[in-house]
Amino acid sequence: MVCRLRLDKRAEYLELHSAVWPGVEAMITECGIRNFTIFVRGDVLFGYYEYVGDDFEADQARMAADPVSQQWWSRTDPCQFGFDDDAPDGARWQELDEVWHQD
Amino acid sequence: MVCRLRLDKRAEYLELHSAVWPGVEAMITECGIRNFTIFVRGDVLFGYYEYVGDDFEADQARMAADPVSQQWWSRTDPCQFGFDDDAPDGARWQELDEVWHQD
Repeated sequence: MVCRLRLDKRAEYLELHSAVWPGVEAMITECGIRNFTIFVRGDVLFGYYEYVGDDFEADQARMAADPVSQQWWSRTDPCQFGFDDDAPDGARWQELDEVWHQD
Repeated sequence: MVCRLRLDKRAEYLELHSAVWPGVEAMITECGIRNFTIFVRGDVLFGYYEYVGDDFEADQARMAADPVSQQWWSRTDPCQFGFDDDAPDGARWQELDEVWHQD
């Protein structure tokens, strides 16, 4: 997944991610997400993770309902906006398509 | 790593990657690269892999010297160009920095 980083909030975003809240990390794990990395280049953020559960929609909904995660996103959301030039208002992370994979 | 895809060569790039040459895949494995995925959104390509060897520079040099890989790149290079607006001529894949990681 990919989104844009507001350059005036770049330092704030990096600072937040130097110490992601334990409750946020715990919820990510509880919701079946593994090997999660966020990368940056310029104003582009790229997120990669692997889902090991069996109901992605339900796990995503569970995370979305978590108050600690909501509080975290209230800090990170203002740093981010949609990747596409014509992304809808309020869009942030947008998914990519897989071209090729080799284990 | 990230680069741009020439939109007039998008179909060609995707077609090539629907059947990556066995010799290319074998060299990738021999050079210590695992869990390699290429993703696309619009004109942006993202590449993610994990290196499991102990001399990344030497393994990259070995791959660069491989005739089959060179032949492959002669097909893929014309489809790609540098990600940054001010990328040097000839640049293609450019690396990102890690912001955060959780196993």
